[in-house]
This record gives sequence, structure tokens and C-alpha cells, in this order.
Amino acid sequence: MTPHALHLSVLYGNRESGHSYKVKLALHLLGVEHEYREVDLDVPLAERPAEFRAASRFGEVPVFVDGDSALAQSNAILLHLAERTGGLGGELPTERLTEWLFWEANRIGFSVPNLRMARTYGAETASLDVVAWLESRALKDLERLDHELSAQPFLVDSSVTIADIACCAYLYWPEQAGLDLTRWPRVVDWLERISALPGWADPYELLRA
Amino acid sequence: MTPHALHLSVLYGNRESGHSYKVKLALHLLGVEHEYREVDLDVPLAERPAEFRAASRFGEVPVFVDGDSALAQSNAILLHLAERTGGLGGELPTERLTEWLFWEANRIGFSVPNLRMARTYGAETASLDVVAWLESRALKDLERLDHELSAQPFLVDSSVTIADIACCAYLYWPEQAGLDLTRWPRVVDWLERISALPGWADPYELLRA
Repeated sequence: MTPHALHLSVLYGNRESGHSYKVKLALHLLGVEHEYREVDLDVPLAERPAEFRAASRFGEVPVFVDGDSALAQSNAILLHLAERTGGLGGELPTERLTEWLFWEANRIGFSVPNLRMARTYGAETASLDVVAWLESRALKDLERLDHELSAQPFLVDSSVTIADIACCAYLYWPEQAGLDLTRWPRVVDWLERISALPGWADPYELLRA
Repeated sequence: MTPHALHLSVLYGNRESGHSYKVKLALHLLGVEHEYREVDLDVPLAERPAEFRAASRFGEVPVFVDGDSALAQSNAILLHLAERTGGLGGELPTERLTEWLFWEANRIGFSVPNLRMARTYGAETASLDVVAWLESRALKDLERLDHELSAQPFLVDSSVTIADIACCAYLYWPEQAGLDLTRWPRVVDWLERISALPGWADPYELLRA
């Protein structure tokens, strides 16, 4: 299937959402044409545009509309894109990707975004105990990535897959989460390998409305 | 593919792990023959049985060994089982299942297990702020399930799928998480529908070594 067969694609996202960035980055790396629509998350859920509310199962970004079907959950969208295009690991057995995608959803895709949220947006209200708890989880998760990347350049295969895209997203904002990535040199090298790929750009550049 | 084509299946799990329970329950509902091996999580990672360490990518339970391949992450295993057997939603478009599976991994499969962990196993050491933060998330997640179940008997389809199995697992231990489920009557009804299925048994009954 060629990228063009993903016709009428629309991505709803928000520039502060690393989960939106995952999908936007995958679309750029795959060369899939799409329209990007920014959703203002400061507007209460019930007052967001009707077309977004109709498309969004959980009321959250990102949502990807591909023809008639609307899909929520960034990792579900990544899996859909890989399987439809055959790129970013789409030719591999699904299990090799889903292991990492579910790890991400429960581990580094939870700890780092919530740590960033607490430190950048909730700095005055977040409990110090909650911040410390999230940080201890984030450190373990970065340790795990650093360990995995000691033997191979990307998480699953010799080239980049959606597993890398899912796990890297929030790590392009390390300072917002209060993380000094130089403690995990293989993670730093891996982020540089990803950012050298044709089509890569940082979150705020890609997620411009 | 018949259940018997999943030959030589081994599930590594632990009786206190709701993530193990998800997989064990799916195997029973699908009628897939398997051997269950309990992993003692009190034994440090490096000292666990070599066969388990070799099979387990993340050092965690559950791990499902199906012939020569070992698969970690409970939801990745559920997806594998559904696709291989065609049961529990395996005949549906994958996207309808993955949306819920990734939601679970990041939401109710994070909040409720960690709340249970803090309240049951870390009662003397867990920060009250962390417990309150986890509880506020768990309440939102239960609200979401209750809302979704207002229109249909199961989350994705008119019959049970792996989305239900993933989301229900820890909810059979509500008291250990300090949750009174009677606040969400549709969730209670849904748990009763699942527990009425042939092959269902509660976590401690299924996860006997």
C-alpha cells in the first residue's frame, strides 16, 4: 500500500502533546500526506469543535482520521500506520512492536509526560512527593532504554521503527521534565540517530498549527 | 487456527499480578492448553530461574512462550492470542481493540494496580500524596468505563473481547485498592457479565501454581 492510499487523513493534535508528536513525526518519516488540526486543550472538552468530539473516543489528542474511521491512542495510530504503509517496522511480526509499545504506554510514556506536566505546568501545585515518585519511575525507565540500546542502534531492529518513535517523543523536551539525559549516553546517541532521519523535526516545529 | 496450534505454550506469572491474570483468564476463556509457571517476585531479578530470565524481555511477569517465541507485556500477549485464535475479538479490525488496550496500559492498568500496590503492600511507606494522586486518576478511569458501558454490555462489541479482559483484571480486587465499585453500577454489572462466562474464575483461583 502506498502512502497515498491513506487518503483524506487528518491528525488532531496539540503542540504541547508528545503523544501528538509521535504520530506527526511518524507521518513525516513515512511521507504520508495529511492535514494537521490543532486542538485547543484549554477549551473544556464539551466546547471543543464538534468534528473533534465526534472523532475522539476519549476526548483526548491525538486522533487520526483515515477516510471514514477515527482512531484514538497514539500507539494504536502508530501501529495502524506501520501496518498500512509497511514502513517503520510494519514488515516485522507485530509482536516485536507491541511489546515495546505497551511497555511505553505503561512506563516511559507515563512517567516522563506526567513528570513534565508536574514540573512545567503544575510547578506551584504539584505535590513534591508525587514529583519524586514520578521521577524515580522515569529514571528506571531511562535506565531500561539505555540498557537495551547498549547492544543495538534502535530498540527492535537495525533501523528505526514505531517502537523508537513512541519511546523518544517526550525525550526531546528533557529540560521541561527536569531530566539531564547525559546520564544515559546511549539514549542521547539514539535520540541523535532519530533526529538525523530525513523528515525529522523537533516537536514545536512539527506541531505548528 | 485452532487452539491446539498454539503448542508448547507456557505462561510465567505471579498470583498477585493482575497483568498475569489477564493472560491466564484469556487462555481459559479461549480454551488454550498451556502450562502455568509461578515466578517468585520476592527473588531478586538476577536470581530468578534462568529459563524465565531468558524468556523475559523486561524481567517482569507475565511472559508467554509459544513455541520458540517469548512474548512480554500482557496486552501484547492478549492481542497475539486473539489474532491467533480468532476469539475474544480476534475477528474484529485490530484498531478497535488496540484503542482500548493502549488506553488501559496508560490509564486503568496503571492507576488501579499502583493504587493497590501502595495500599496493600506499601501501606506503611507510601506517600499519602501519591496515594491521593493515584486514586484521583483511578476514579476518572472508572468514570470513563462506567460511561462507555452505559450504551453497550462490553467495551468494543456485543460480546466479550480482550479489551474487556485487559480492563477488568485488577477490578476483581477492589478492596485491595480501597475502591468501592458500587459507585459505578455499570462497571459492577459488566464485571458480573464477565464472571458469568464459561471458564472464568477469580485471580487467586486461576493463578495457583
